Amino acid sequence: MSFLQESPHRRFNPLSGDWVLVSPHRTKRPWSGQIEPAAGASAPSHDPGCYLCPGAVRANGAQNPAYESVFVFDNDFAALQPHVTVEAIDIGGLLTARTEQGRCRVICFSPRHDLWLARMDAKDIAEVVEAWRREFVDLGARDDVNYVQIFENRGPMMGASNPHPHCQIWASASVPNEPAREDRFQADYLKRNSRCLLCDYLAKETQARERIVCENDSFVAVAPFWAVWPFELLLLSKRHLGAIDQFTEPEKRDLAAMLKSVCVRYDNLFQTPFPYTMGFHQRPTDGGDYPHWHFHGHFYPPLLRSASIRKFMVGFELLASPQRDITPEAAAERLRACSERHYLER
Amino acid sequence: MSFLQESPHRRFNPLSGDWVLVSPHRTKRPWSGQIEPAAGASAPSHDPGCYLCPGAVRANGAQNPAYESVFVFDNDFAALQPHVTVEAIDIGGLLTARTEQGRCRVICFSPRHDLWLARMDAKDIAEVVEAWRREFVDLGARDDVNYVQIFENRGPMMGASNPHPHCQIWASASVPNEPAREDRFQADYLKRNSRCLLCDYLAKETQARERIVCENDSFVAVAPFWAVWPFELLLLSKRHLGAIDQFTEPEKRDLAAMLKSVCVRYDNLFQTPFPYTMGFHQRPTDGGDYPHWHFHGHFYPPLLRSASIRKFMVGFELLASPQRDITPEAAAERLRACSERHYLER
Ligand SMILES: O=P(O)(O)O[C@H]1O[C@H](CO)[C@@H](O)[C@H](O)[C@H]1O
Ligand SMILES: O=P(O)(O)O[C@H]1O[C@H](CO)[C@@H](O)[C@H](O)[C@H]1O
Repeated sequence: MSFLQESPHRRFNPLSGDWVLVSPHRTKRPWSGQIEPAAGASAPSHDPGCYLCPGAVRANGAQNPAYESVFVFDNDFAALQPHVTVEAIDIGGLLTARTEQGRCRVICFSPRHDLWLARMDAKDIAEVVEAWRREFVDLGARDDVNYVQIFENRGPMMGASNPHPHCQIWASASVPNEPAREDRFQADYLKRNSRCLLCDYLAKETQARERIVCENDSFVAVAPFWAVWPFELLLLSKRHLGAIDQFTEPEKRDLAAMLKSVCVRYDNLFQTPFPYTMGFHQRPTDGGDYPHWHFHGHFYPPLLRSASIRKFMVGFELLASPQRDITPEAAAERLRACSERHYLER
Repeated sequence: MSFLQESPHRRFNPLSGDWVLVSPHRTKRPWSGQIEPAAGASAPSHDPGCYLCPGAVRANGAQNPAYESVFVFDNDFAALQPHVTVEAIDIGGLLTARTEQGRCRVICFSPRHDLWLARMDAKDIAEVVEAWRREFVDLGARDDVNYVQIFENRGPMMGASNPHPHCQIWASASVPNEPAREDRFQADYLKRNSRCLLCDYLAKETQARERIVCENDSFVAVAPFWAVWPFELLLLSKRHLGAIDQFTEPEKRDLAAMLKSVCVRYDNLFQTPFPYTMGFHQRPTDGGDYPHWHFHGHFYPPLLRSASIRKFMVGFELLASPQRDITPEAAAERLRACSERHYLER
C-alpha cells in the first residue's frame, strides 16, 4: 500500500486503542530548535562519587557490598511504599483518589560503572535476566503487589538520575494505566477471535518481514506498525508466554542475546550511546487467569536524525495524538542494516 | 484528607480515565541527572536569520509581509495536508491505517522576535485570541476538518523549532486520541448526571479554593486534582461554552488577561522564561451536537525544582502511569504566591 510511505495517515495501535499520525512527506523540515549535548567522555570503571558502585555508601547510610555481577536493593527514594494504610476519597467522581501500596527496587547490571547493555557480554546480561525473573516471582508473590513493572531509563536525555548501568522495578497494588489498557485489548481480542493478539500479529510480521529488525530462536524485534517513537521497537517472545517466570533456560539466554543485539544496533545507528526507555509488559500478579497476555518489551528511544537531534513529544503529541515523520518500515530498514558489532569495539 | 499530602496514592482523571501516581514523600531524592542549559541571552527584536520575522523569506520562497500585530500562514512543512486521497487498510484489526486530511497553520504572536506571551501586553494578546477565534471558525467550516487543535510549544526544552513567539494549529479530519477521550468522558458524565463535568468540577474547586491559582470574570486557572506535570494548570471558562466561537468580546479580553497572568506567574516561579506546551480543547467541528463539551486550556510545563531541573516523563511514566512528587495543592500555593508583575520588568 503506497499511501503508507507517501501520504499523511493514521495507524491504529491494537494494544492500546490509540492512533498515531504519520507524516512521511515531512522529513525535510528545518531545525533551529534544541541541539542535545554530545555524550560525555568515557567514564571510569569505578566512580567513588557514584552511590551505585560496589562499596559505596548510599543516601540512607547503607553500604553496597563488593558485588561482582548484579546487585538488587530497595530504592532509597521509593515512589511506592509497602504498609500504606488504605484510604480513599471520591467526591462525585470528580475528586477521586486512593492510597497505593507497592515497592520500588533497583538492579545494578554490573559492578562496572562504565558499561551498559550494548557493551556487556550476553552472558552477563543473562544474569540480569535471571534477576528480573527472581524479582518478578518474589515481588509478584506479595499480597500488596498485583503488577510488576521492570524498566530502564538509559541516558541523561531519558532522565536517568545516575549513569551507572541499572534498571528499576516499581511493583504496585494496582495495575497501572498502560498495562491495564493492554490487558483489556488483549482480552477483548482473544474473546472475539479465540486467538492471542500478539501471536497473530507476530505471524503477520513474520510473513511481511519488512518491519522485523532481528530475531533468534525465542524472540523477534520488530518496529511495530503503530510505532510512535522514531526507532521504537517491540520485542516479542515467539512462544505464547504471559511472563518471565515461564521462560526456559534457553529463552533466558535468548532474551539476553536479543537485548544485546538491539542495543548494539541502536548505538551503531548514530555512533552514540543510544538513549531510550525500555521495559517489559507482563501479566498482572494478582493470581488471576490471563490466557490473553503475551510477554513483550517496549523500546522507546527519542533520537530522530542524529546523536543530537531528537523527536519532541510535545504540543500536538501531548494534547491530541502522537505524530511521527519517518515510517516504521524505514526505521526497521536502517536498524536492520546496522552491524551487530559495537562501533567502539571495531 | 491528609493522605493526599503524605502517602503514596493514585488520583483519577475524570476527563481521560487515566490515573496518576502521586508520591508526596519523595521530593528530597538526589539528582545526578541531566541539568538543562540556562535560558540564552536576550534576543534581538528583529532577527534577520529568523523565517518568522516580518519581511523574511520562508523555506517555500514566500516572503512574510511587514506585519504589525499577528500573522497567520500555512505551515511550510505541514504534518497534515488537504486533498489527500481517501485510502485505508485493515488486516485482521492488527495492521490498520487510513489516510488523513487536514491543514497546519502557524500564527506569529507579534512582529517582535524578542517577546513572548508573558512579556506581551494583554491588549496585544487579545489580537492573538481573535486570530484563534477566526481560524477556529474558518478551519472548522471546511469539509476536510472536523477538529481544530490550537497549541503552543514554548521554549527549546519543549521542542519549539524557532524562538520567535508563535503557535500552531493542526486541523484534522479525525478527532485525535485525547479530545476523543475527553469527548467520551464528558458525554458520559452528562448522560449520567444531567450536568456538565467541568461545570461541576469548577464548582467544587471554587468551593475548595486550595488548587485555584488565579481567576477573573470569565476564567479560572486551577492546578487540577489529577495534574501530571509538576506545575500543570487547567484553564476553565466560567460559562459553559463549547468553543471560542461562542466567546463575547469581554470573554476574549479576559482570556488574554488570564494567559498573561498565568505566563507571568510561571516566569516568576523560577525567574526564567518558563517552558511549556499549552493548548485548547474544544468541541469537534463536524457539525454535530456537543452539549457536554466545555472549553478549556491545558498548560503542561516540565520544570520541577528550578530553571535547570525538569521532570522527565520516562520509564514508569511511559510504560505504566504518570508519576509526580509535589502535590497539585503545593504547586497551586507556590504559583498563587508569585507576583503578577514580571521579574524582568521590576
Ligand atoms: O512544528 P515544530 O515546532 O517544528 O515542531 C515541534 O512541534 C511539533 C508538534 O507538536 C512536534 O511534532 C515536533 O516534534 C516539535 O519539535
Ligand atoms: O528514578 P530515577 O532514575 O531517579 O528517575 C527517573 O525515573 C523515574 C521513573 O520513570 C521518573 O519518575 C523520573 O522522572 C526520572 O527522572
